[in-house]
Amino acid sequence: MIGSKIEQAVGILKELDIDMWLVFVRESSAVHDPCIDLVVGANVTWASAFIVTRGGERIAILGSLDKAAHEALGHYPVIVPYVQGIREPFLETLRRLDPRSIAVNFSINDETADGLTHGMYLLLQDLLAGTPYGSRLVSSEGIVARLRSRKQAPELARITRACEETVDLFAQLHGRLRAGQTERQIAAVMVEIMEKKGLTRAWDADHCPAVFTGPESAGAHAGPTDRVMEPGHLMNVDFGMRVEGYCSDLQRTWYCLKPGESAPPEIVMKGFGAIRDAIRKAGEFLRPGVKGHEVDAVARGHITSLGFAEYPHALGHQIGRQAHDGAGLLCPIWERYGDKPYSVVEEGQCYTIEPRVTVPGHGVATMEEIVVVTKDGCRYLSKPQTEIMLVTG
Amino acid sequence: MIGSKIEQAVGILKELDIDMWLVFVRESSAVHDPCIDLVVGANVTWASAFIVTRGGERIAILGSLDKAAHEALGHYPVIVPYVQGIREPFLETLRRLDPRSIAVNFSINDETADGLTHGMYLLLQDLLAGTPYGSRLVSSEGIVARLRSRKQAPELARITRACEETVDLFAQLHGRLRAGQTERQIAAVMVEIMEKKGLTRAWDADHCPAVFTGPESAGAHAGPTDRVMEPGHLMNVDFGMRVEGYCSDLQRTWYCLKPGESAPPEIVMKGFGAIRDAIRKAGEFLRPGVKGHEVDAVARGHITSLGFAEYPHALGHQIGRQAHDGAGLLCPIWERYGDKPYSVVEEGQCYTIEPRVTVPGHGVATMEEIVVVTKDGCRYLSKPQTEIMLVTG
Repeated sequence: MIGSKIEQAVGILKELDIDMWLVFVRESSAVHDPCIDLVVGANVTWASAFIVTRGGERIAILGSLDKAAHEALGHYPVIVPYVQGIREPFLETLRRLDPRSIAVNFSINDETADGLTHGMYLLLQDLLAGTPYGSRLVSSEGIVARLRSRKQAPELARITRACEETVDLFAQLHGRLRAGQTERQIAAVMVEIMEKKGLTRAWDADHCPAVFTGPESAGAHAGPTDRVMEPGHLMNVDFGMRVEGYCSDLQRTWYCLKPGESAPPEIVMKGFGAIRDAIRKAGEFLRPGVKGHEVDAVARGHITSLGFAEYPHALGHQIGRQAHDGAGLLCPIWERYGDKPYSVVEEGQCYTIEPRVTVPGHGVATMEEIVVVTKDGCRYLSKPQTEIMLVTG
Repeated sequence: MIGSKIEQAVGILKELDIDMWLVFVRESSAVHDPCIDLVVGANVTWASAFIVTRGGERIAILGSLDKAAHEALGHYPVIVPYVQGIREPFLETLRRLDPRSIAVNFSINDETADGLTHGMYLLLQDLLAGTPYGSRLVSSEGIVARLRSRKQAPELARITRACEETVDLFAQLHGRLRAGQTERQIAAVMVEIMEKKGLTRAWDADHCPAVFTGPESAGAHAGPTDRVMEPGHLMNVDFGMRVEGYCSDLQRTWYCLKPGESAPPEIVMKGFGAIRDAIRKAGEFLRPGVKGHEVDAVARGHITSLGFAEYPHALGHQIGRQAHDGAGLLCPIWERYGDKPYSVVEEGQCYTIEPRVTVPGHGVATMEEIVVVTKDGCRYLSKPQTEIMLVTG
C-alpha cells in the first residue's frame, strides 16, 4: 500500500499547490508518527527527513545505520545516509529543490497529522536558521487528511474484511453468552475467537475488547471488570480487529432477560430503537458535501427528541489504518473538537456511526456501524444490528 | 512501578526547584509519549493534562470517557473529567496551584522526553494566552532524564532478568547454528526460543532479532535476509527481550569455520579481541562523574589504535523501559548527538556498551553488554562474551 499512497500524495500536493511534503522524525519506535505507517514503512533511529515533492521525487535523509532497512523497502529511491549529522545533506537537498512551500508533519486539529514533536520542531527551526526555508513551513494536515480519507480499493477491501470478521465474532459470541458471566469472562471469549481467526486487536489491549454491563458500568473507554451480567442488564461490547494493517471498530448491544421475561421492558426497547433509528437517519443523511456537525445533529436531535440525554462524544470518526483515523469527524461544535465539526464529507471516506443512550436502571444501549461514503450517499461495510440480542440464564 | 516512579518524580521536582510537571497529551495510542508508560499507565483519547507538583499533588484533567480507566489505575487521586473542552478545568487548576515554573514534556536533545507534539504545543500556547503561565514553561527533560536514569531496585531486577534470559537464549541458539543457514532461519530459531520463554521483543519485529552474516551484510538496524552463513563469515546477532516492561539489548558474534580450520584466522581474532578489550576498558573507566564522550573515547581510541575504522555510532545508550532509554549517551561529540556527549554518568544508570569493527572479507565483529553504574564503577548485568563462538558445518 505504501508505494501507491505515496503516488496518491504526489497528486494531493499538486491539488493543494504545495511543492514539498516533509515528514521529519527520529526514534520513531519511541514516539511514533502515524505517517510512518502511511508513507514510510519502517522506523528510524536518528533525525530523518522523508521528502515527497510535487514533481514526484522521493528522498530519504537518515542515519547511516538505518539505510539498509529503508533501501530494502524501496519506497524512497534516493537515500542520503549521514554519519555525523543531518544538517549538511538536508540543507543541500533543500537548496537543490528550492521549494516555495514545505508542508511539515504537525497539526493543531488533527492528531494523526501531528507526529512532529515540539523538540523536533525546534531542531528544524535551528537547521533552517539563516535560510529562506524557515518561513516557508506550513502544516501538512491537509495532505495527511486527504491521504488517510480517500481510501483506495485495496484499503477498502481490508476494512471491509475487518468488519465482516468482527460481525462474525459477535455472532459466535452471542451463542456463548449466559447470565452470570463477568465482563472479563465475556472479553476472554472474544479474545479466544479473535485468536482463532489469527487476527489482532485494533487498539490497546486494556480496552479492546471493552465490555460494559448494567447501570453501574463505566460505559466507554475502560477495560472489562469483574462486574457480573445480571438479568435486567443492558450489556454492550466495543471491539475492533486489524486485517493487514486496517481496522474495524464496532459495538453491539444485548439485553439479559429476567426470569419470566420473554422480551426486554418497554424503556429498554425505546432506548435500543432510539439508537437503531439514529444510526439509520444519520446514514440516510450522510453524503458528500455535508458537514460533520450536520450529520452529528441528525442523530443527536433524534435521541434528545425522545427524551434521552445526549451522548457525551462525537457521533463518529474516520477509520482506516487506525481506529481513530484522524481529520474529519461527525461531531458537535464543542471546544475539544477544534475545527473538526466543519469538515466536509467526501466520497471514499469511511466513518463509524456510534450514538449511545443511557437507559436508567438497565445500562447503556449503543451500536457502532461503519460506512463508506459513496457518490451520493453511503454504504454499510458492517451489517447493522437491527434487533436487540437477548441473553438468557 | 508507576506509583513509586511518581513519588520519585516529586523528589526530582524538589531537587530541580520546579513547581509543576505537566505531561500534555492526546490520542496517545496514535502518537505515544513514552512518559505515559513511566508515570501515567494508560492512554487517553482527548487533550489531557497529567500534573505532578513539588508538593506531591497528582491531578489528571481528561475527557470524561477516559475517566474510568484512569480512576481504576489510581495514580492520580484528583481526576477532573470534561465533556466540552479542557480550557476551563485546566486554567482553573493552574490558577489554584499558581506555579512559578511548569516543566512540559518536550526536549530538543532527548527523544524520550519529547512526547509533546508541535500541534499540542500550539494548543497549549493558545490555552495559556492572556495568562502569566505561557512564559513559565520550561522543558521537562531534566526531570524525565533523572526519572528514567535512576533505576529503582525492582526496575533493575527486571532488566537483569531480561539480560539473563537473553544470554540463555544465545546459549541455546549456539547449539542450533550450522553453516548454510540463512539470516532469516537463524532469526526464526531465536523467535522460537523467545516464544517458548513466553517473552516478547524489546523493539520492532522487523529487526528484532537482527542477524548479520558475512562481509556483504547490512551490519546494523536492518532485518534478517536470505543471505547464507558461509564458512569464513563473521555472524552477529542483535536482540533484546522485554520482562515486565523492561528491556535487554545484547549482541553476540560467531565465526563460521572453513573446512580444515580449527580456529578463526588471525585477522578475525584481532577484530574480536579489539571489541572484547574495548568493552573491558570502557567498563573499567565507567563510573559516576565521567562524561559520556570520555567513555566513548576509551573504546573508540582502543579500536582505532589497532588500525580498525571507528564505529559509525555511539558506544552505548541507556536502557530500561525502552531499548533506547533516552538522555545520557556514551557518544562522540558529533552534531547528531546534540548535547548528549556532555552528559555526566550517575550511579544507578544502566548503559549498553557496543563497539563494532568491520573485519574486511569476513564481516562485522560486535558484542553488546549491559552494565549498571555503581558507587565507584560499574557492574555487568549480562555475562560478557569473552571468547569467539564457532560454528561448523
